[in-house]
Amino acid sequence: MLKNDRLLRALRREPVDRTPVWLMRQAGRYLPEYRATRARAGSFLAMAKNPEIACEVTLQPLQRFPLDAAILFSDILTIPDAMGLELYFAEGEGPRFRHPVRDAEAIGRLAVPDMETELGYVMEAIRLIRRELDGRVPLIGFSGSPWTLACYMIEGGGSKDYARIKALALNDPALLHQLLGVVTDAVVAYLSAQRAAGAQALQVFDTWGGVLSPAMYREFSLPYLARIARELKRGEGAERTPMILFGKGNGAHVEALAATGTDAVGVDWTIDIGEAVQRTGGQVAIQGNLDPAVLYGSPEAIRREAGQVLDRYAQGNGGSREGHVFNLGHGMSPDMDPERVAALVEAVHALSAR
Amino acid sequence: MLKNDRLLRALRREPVDRTPVWLMRQAGRYLPEYRATRARAGSFLAMAKNPEIACEVTLQPLQRFPLDAAILFSDILTIPDAMGLELYFAEGEGPRFRHPVRDAEAIGRLAVPDMETELGYVMEAIRLIRRELDGRVPLIGFSGSPWTLACYMIEGGGSKDYARIKALALNDPALLHQLLGVVTDAVVAYLSAQRAAGAQALQVFDTWGGVLSPAMYREFSLPYLARIARELKRGEGAERTPMILFGKGNGAHVEALAATGTDAVGVDWTIDIGEAVQRTGGQVAIQGNLDPAVLYGSPEAIRREAGQVLDRYAQGNGGSREGHVFNLGHGMSPDMDPERVAALVEAVHALSAR
Repeated sequence: MLKNDRLLRALRREPVDRTPVWLMRQAGRYLPEYRATRARAGSFLAMAKNPEIACEVTLQPLQRFPLDAAILFSDILTIPDAMGLELYFAEGEGPRFRHPVRDAEAIGRLAVPDMETELGYVMEAIRLIRRELDGRVPLIGFSGSPWTLACYMIEGGGSKDYARIKALALNDPALLHQLLGVVTDAVVAYLSAQRAAGAQALQVFDTWGGVLSPAMYREFSLPYLARIARELKRGEGAERTPMILFGKGNGAHVEALAATGTDAVGVDWTIDIGEAVQRTGGQVAIQGNLDPAVLYGSPEAIRREAGQVLDRYAQGNGGSREGHVFNLGHGMSPDMDPERVAALVEAVHALSAR
Repeated sequence: MLKNDRLLRALRREPVDRTPVWLMRQAGRYLPEYRATRARAGSFLAMAKNPEIACEVTLQPLQRFPLDAAILFSDILTIPDAMGLELYFAEGEGPRFRHPVRDAEAIGRLAVPDMETELGYVMEAIRLIRRELDGRVPLIGFSGSPWTLACYMIEGGGSKDYARIKALALNDPALLHQLLGVVTDAVVAYLSAQRAAGAQALQVFDTWGGVLSPAMYREFSLPYLARIARELKRGEGAERTPMILFGKGNGAHVEALAATGTDAVGVDWTIDIGEAVQRTGGQVAIQGNLDPAVLYGSPEAIRREAGQVLDRYAQGNGGSREGHVFNLGHGMSPDMDPERVAALVEAVHALSAR
């Protein structure tokens, strides 16, 4: 039924004719058509909460570039928003919550939101996008990781040093585990609902796992990622819906991530992707890992650097390109040039043709 | 002549009675006496450029805590400031340069500043501090690394994605190497002059090396660190003035850093320090690596976490604590509590007593 199933095949480490490529934040402000839609809708959040607009924006990059996947236009913080923390975006400041949770009482009140009412706008968007995509490429659903959601829920927004959540981790680890537990229940329910609504692959963004020491990562991030992998694998549709665990700064932990049972591990650009595939020994697919800043380079530089990522992957994988999903190591930025994106997608397909 | 030479002995991997400890940014805004001096001096830069005040502020933390080293109160960006880029601090924004360098002409005009005139205030401060310290503990001098200085020189300040310097690295690597070359000449001259003025150990801060892919790190950061190590080792006083290469996010590169000929490698908290010492196999001392956010924990948590850093080091070092300099994995923050710092220093000394 899918006309282009490269992504799903690569995530299962099956042979493909070309390495599939999609880009984190491929639907975004670097596209003039996105900015036009946003001007009409008013705000990022208004766009994400309106299924028709979320669908429109999800499809925009596919109309320009032969990308191998669509990714749901949404935010990683929808779950805490639905839990009552009230997400908002202060101009030029990134996401914030009006009601951060900072004590046992607030944490005790948290409950898993209802997926078809409180997060129904996400499921509706997925159903709409699937209809509009009509099998051209698969649709990726996603969620923030428990640790990453907890960071925002406790800090109330982005943070330089994560002082509040780390103090909680040190002074009252049981309370933080209670928070992470209910958030993980919600993430599992959320991703299961996205899968039921039509998401064909699922990515968990552990954006802030890399701010932890290895010992704290193993206590506060990894076990919850492992639980998500385990519980999603038991659910309906699991066999045809691969999952990707992406994390910024997770290079030291790729073996542990591969051992969770996930289908793929997404890595940022600070690890050699050849080393990542070698260290995980064919257990999982690897997604990544071009430095997004390469998109500020010339088309020649983009082609050269993309080729190096492809070749390093193959070198670490016994000469084979199988099991590689090409992506950036992090999301795109608003000041990037769509023509450079076109050059990148073209280069990945051309240089990886079998 | 030194009453407390634990730091110098540990940097040479010689036996010590207790693991030495100092803290990056130990002279800083978390101390009320620092804030009082700053209110009098007017600004950070006015303090750094006045040798008497720099001396006063350098000594402040030593009057409170039994730290095993003093570190010169200064900024990592003094060299480009002396090159004419004009350093300033916009309120709440971090360091900026009034005249960033962005083209071949500006880069071609850069020259190594004269150390005793243009950077004389630093040498004067070192001489004063040595006199005032009177051999109580050694004085550490420092500089930013060539890559880190180049980041600020080209971006004009801090950056989220280092788009300008990475674009230059991709599109005109020869020009970036030219810039890094003259900056490295200046760093070598600067650290040599600090040593001649009385600095008893030298640290290079590669604060932004970790934003690079491994391939770019090996091209644009590592070779210049290696050149500094090589050239400093040839200079007068080299045998008694150990050097430390610190880098945020340098965990993937500790073997390569150890191979530069440096005496010590400083690591942040995202690597297990036991792994760092194991991977460098006794070639160098290792400095680090408590997560600074642990200082937001309770005194009990601080003691427990400090003990874990000490013990992990020993585990990776065949059971021995030799060759470990205890430090944070990054600098202190203004909102930290001096009483927690006291608890940390006390814990390190108590838990590491031989």
